[in-house]
Amino acid sequence: MMPAVIDKLVIIGVGLIGGSFALALREASLVRHIVGIGRSRGNMQRALAMGAIDEIGVSLPAALRDAKLVFLAMPVGQTEAVLAQISPYLGPDTIVTDAGSTKQNIVAAARRQLPPHLQNFVPGHPIAGAELSGVDSADAGLFHGRNVVLTPLTETSTAAANVVAELWEACGSRVFRMSAAEHDDILATISHLPHMLAFALMNHAALDRTHGTDGSLSPPPSAQAHVRPRGPLQFAGTGFRDMVRIAGSSPEMWRDICLANREAVIRQIDAYQAELAGLRQLLASGNGKELESAFSRARDARKRWLENQP
Amino acid sequence: MMPAVIDKLVIIGVGLIGGSFALALREASLVRHIVGIGRSRGNMQRALAMGAIDEIGVSLPAALRDAKLVFLAMPVGQTEAVLAQISPYLGPDTIVTDAGSTKQNIVAAARRQLPPHLQNFVPGHPIAGAELSGVDSADAGLFHGRNVVLTPLTETSTAAANVVAELWEACGSRVFRMSAAEHDDILATISHLPHMLAFALMNHAALDRTHGTDGSLSPPPSAQAHVRPRGPLQFAGTGFRDMVRIAGSSPEMWRDICLANREAVIRQIDAYQAELAGLRQLLASGNGKELESAFSRARDARKRWLENQP
Repeated sequence: MMPAVIDKLVIIGVGLIGGSFALALREASLVRHIVGIGRSRGNMQRALAMGAIDEIGVSLPAALRDAKLVFLAMPVGQTEAVLAQISPYLGPDTIVTDAGSTKQNIVAAARRQLPPHLQNFVPGHPIAGAELSGVDSADAGLFHGRNVVLTPLTETSTAAANVVAELWEACGSRVFRMSAAEHDDILATISHLPHMLAFALMNHAALDRTHGTDGSLSPPPSAQAHVRPRGPLQFAGTGFRDMVRIAGSSPEMWRDICLANREAVIRQIDAYQAELAGLRQLLASGNGKELESAFSRARDARKRWLENQP
Repeated sequence: MMPAVIDKLVIIGVGLIGGSFALALREASLVRHIVGIGRSRGNMQRALAMGAIDEIGVSLPAALRDAKLVFLAMPVGQTEAVLAQISPYLGPDTIVTDAGSTKQNIVAAARRQLPPHLQNFVPGHPIAGAELSGVDSADAGLFHGRNVVLTPLTETSTAAANVVAELWEACGSRVFRMSAAEHDDILATISHLPHMLAFALMNHAALDRTHGTDGSLSPPPSAQAHVRPRGPLQFAGTGFRDMVRIAGSSPEMWRDICLANREAVIRQIDAYQAELAGLRQLLASGNGKELESAFSRARDARKRWLENQP
C-alpha cells in the first residue's frame, strides 16, 4: 500500500541519514515540503542547494507548525535535549521518529520529555553504513535493501507506527518491529561488539606490547609500552585492513552508543572473551582436531549467513 | 640489477601462490623451463594448459636434476615431508625456497631434513591474500606491491638469498630480511591474531549465548547454548561482514599455521584480551572521556597506517 504523501516533513540533523531519507522520499514522490534544521550553516546550505531540503528552519515553532512528521537524525547523545526543545511545539497529530543507533535510551528520553505525545512517537533505527557523514554523502538509495528496526512503545499507536514503516518501505528498506531491549541486544552483537573489537585490534597492533627488546614477555601495558623499531603494521595486508575498517568510525558517536548500551555491550564483550579463551585453550593444549573444527564451524556459519542474505 | 635467467625452475604445489610465481617470472622473462609437481592431477593439467608450467614432473629425481631453483608452495603442514623427499636429489647448487606462512617451524624442519644443503635454503613468505586457492586463481600480478619476507639461516649464503630476493623484486614485491622469530611475531600480530578474532566473532554471533529466553545472563557456553528465535545475524551489515571475511579461510591451513606459531599467537591473544578488557573497564566505569580517547587513538593509528601504506 502506498503511504499518504507527507505535506510537511521536518528533519532535524540533515547529515548522511537525514539527507538520504529526504532524497529517498522525494524520489518516491512522498513528500511535498521539507524543512531542515541543523547546527552547521554550511551543511544546511549544501542540503538546500542539492535539493535535499526546501527550507532551512530558523525557528522551532514555525518549523514544527503543521508538520506531519519530524525525523530526528542527529547524534544519539543530543536526542533528549532536542526532544525537550521540540516538545512544546508539537501538534497533536505530528508523528515523531528517530534514527538513533540505540533504542532503550531514546525510549527513556521520550518518556521523560514527550509524555503527552508518546502515542505518536515511533523510535527507529535504519541499519545503514555510517563511515561517511555530512549531507554531501547523502544518497537516495542508501536505505535500499537495508534493515530498519522500529521499537514502538506500548503507548505508540499502530497507526503512527504504520506511517513510519510504510515510509521506510518506500525507501526500499525491510522493516522489523521489536522491543527496544531486543534491538539493543541484537545491535550489541552485530555492531557494537565488532566496533569494540576493531578499536582494540587497531590499538593493540599499533602499540605492540607483547615483546620487550629482548623478545621476552613484557610487563603489563602501561609499564613498558613501546613501538617496535620494525613495526608489525607495515606488513599488514588486506585481512587486517578489513578487520580495522570500522575503527575509523567517529569516536564521539561510538562513545555515546557504547555508554547508551553499556550493559549489553559488556555482556557481549564477556561472552566474546570466553569464546576467544576457548580457542586459546585449544591452541595451548595443541588440540588441532578441535581447533580445526572450531574454524570449520565459523567458516560454515559465515557461508550460511552469506547465503541467507537477501 | 636484473637477476640471471633461471634455466630450470621446479615448483612443488602449483596453486594460487606457486602458479602466480610461475606466471610472474614468465612475464618477466626470467625463467626458461618450469616443472610443476602436485597432488591434484586436474589442477596440474590446468596449470599446464594455462602455461603456468611447461611440464608435469612425475619423478622427483628427474624433476630435480639440474634444477636451479625449487619453490615450495604447498600447505605448511606438508613442508617437512617434502623436504625429506627432495633432499637426496638436490644438486649442490640448487637453491630451495618456500612460501610458508610460518617460518620458525620451516627453519627447524630444514635443519632436520636438509643439513648438508642449508647454505642454499632461503625460507620466504610472500604476504599475499589467500582467500582463493588453486591454479585457476593464479595471477602474474598477485605479488605486485606486496611484501615478501625472507628469513635466511645463519648458514644461508648471501648469494642464495640474493637470488631469491631479486626474483621476488622482479615480481614487483618489496623484500625484507629478518629472523624467523621476528617474522613469526609480526605475522602473529597482523595476521594470525586477526584470524583468531574473526573465527571467534563468527562463532560467537552465530550462536549467541549471552541471553536466555528470559533475557537473563545464561550459564557458560556448553550448558544452555541456543540460537535465538530472531537471530542477530540477519541484521548484520557491512561492518560485521568485513570483520568476519577472513573467517572464510581454510580451517586446515589455519590449524597448521596456529599450531606452528602457537607461542606467539597465544601471546598475542593474551595481550589483545588485556586491551579489550581495558575498554570493558572504561565502559563499566562509565568513563566516556577515556573511552572516546581510546577510540580516537585507534582511529588516528589507522589513519596514519593507511597514509604510510606504499
